[in-house]
Amino acid sequence: MYKERPLILVTNDDGIHAGGLKMLIDIAGEYGDVVVVAPEESQSGMSHAITIKQPIRINKKHEENGLTVYSCSGTPVDCVKLAINQLLDRKPDLLLSGINHGSNASVSVIYSGTMAAAIEGGVNNIHSVGFSLLDYSSDADFRVAGKIVRRILKEVLSNGIPTEICLNVNIPALRESEIKGIKICRQTKGYWQEEFDKRTDPFNRDYYWLTGYFNNNEPDASDTDEWALRNGYVSVVPIRVDYTCFDYIRELKKRKF
Amino acid sequence: MYKERPLILVTNDDGIHAGGLKMLIDIAGEYGDVVVVAPEESQSGMSHAITIKQPIRINKKHEENGLTVYSCSGTPVDCVKLAINQLLDRKPDLLLSGINHGSNASVSVIYSGTMAAAIEGGVNNIHSVGFSLLDYSSDADFRVAGKIVRRILKEVLSNGIPTEICLNVNIPALRESEIKGIKICRQTKGYWQEEFDKRTDPFNRDYYWLTGYFNNNEPDASDTDEWALRNGYVSVVPIRVDYTCFDYIRELKKRKF
Repeated sequence: MYKERPLILVTNDDGIHAGGLKMLIDIAGEYGDVVVVAPEESQSGMSHAITIKQPIRINKKHEENGLTVYSCSGTPVDCVKLAINQLLDRKPDLLLSGINHGSNASVSVIYSGTMAAAIEGGVNNIHSVGFSLLDYSSDADFRVAGKIVRRILKEVLSNGIPTEICLNVNIPALRESEIKGIKICRQTKGYWQEEFDKRTDPFNRDYYWLTGYFNNNEPDASDTDEWALRNGYVSVVPIRVDYTCFDYIRELKKRKF
Repeated sequence: MYKERPLILVTNDDGIHAGGLKMLIDIAGEYGDVVVVAPEESQSGMSHAITIKQPIRINKKHEENGLTVYSCSGTPVDCVKLAINQLLDRKPDLLLSGINHGSNASVSVIYSGTMAAAIEGGVNNIHSVGFSLLDYSSDADFRVAGKIVRRILKEVLSNGIPTEICLNVNIPALRESEIKGIKICRQTKGYWQEEFDKRTDPFNRDYYWLTGYFNNNEPDASDTDEWALRNGYVSVVPIRVDYTCFDYIRELKKRKF
């Protein structure tokens, strides 16, 4: 698909020091010239937030032939915007986000900074893929995930993906021999059942920590990402950059507002 | 649609002191019992962010028959989660978000805390509508917008909306006589062309302010929200809570990953 060596923008939401980012940078370097713009600190749960009230700072951490690394004080979406508008000479051919430490399957996609960066790529007409490994630990082993990332990348670099979508790739934390394959899925319907942890501070004021667990509304639906992951598959969900529900426009037009 | 007086949850992203919120609270009170959970401060551009690293605090500001008002230190989505999981005795019948000071048309929907709150309502199976007035000023006049909100509310309370979608309602800043009607639209394809304002601090370090302007990819498409607003209509876009691009699943299944 590319005549010359592609330019690949890499970002994440776990921050510049995350092991999953390091793996993704190494793999991207096998296929193209790489520019990394990643948050200084973890930005998990920041979704598509942009930094409006504060200025954003950038720090060039590393530069060698084919690899430039910046950290950014802002959110993952800020990283993508700064890369496109300030740091890169031309639009990247590909945006890779992750590899996230922890799942972004089902409804988690809407809270995820990793996937927001991929969606922002799509909005800017860049082929974009977000990767997540189902292991939240900071020292997760990304070697098997790395092999999956390569398989997806080869296909995407050969045949492209429409920029109206980006791919949400989730990888189960299994041995290579246990992974049954790559399955195209839809997003599972579900929600986070929030169990706020209510505490009282030394000054007798209440405060809450957000905790909670995922509630799957359709655990038996074999075309969903949660089902695929629970059954040993890598899940790939095409995510729409345009939020319009086209199916419902005709119905709404019948209503008397 | 409702046998008893509906319970209406009201939130926004401009914060508890915003004029648009006050108007929405007043209108909601005409139709149901109202609980307000809104951010202490402006949370514009926070999208679907949730607060993970810090505890969240809630402050009950007001309580009378049929109206309870809380402020919350977190994001708009935190407000919705806390309302549903901690503050309300039962699930609200309706979630109203706004009235936002400024447009959430086109791609702005993905950065908007106001619309994220509405989407979070949909995820939690609550009928949800976000309202925005195309006037960014803090002392914007919401009287005409209020009339539009009432028209939409009456219809939604009578006939409901599916919880797989929420409505993104944008209202032009026009006199009542200038508004041509309410138009069902799709989200305009476009993006924010970021013109970061690069400055240097007293210690000779660079920093960036996010500014920019909206670039409309299809200014002549009369089925889009931007076209409607520019031509004197209120735009109503059905927004999908599920981000899957169903149209592309079959295509992706043909690919060799």
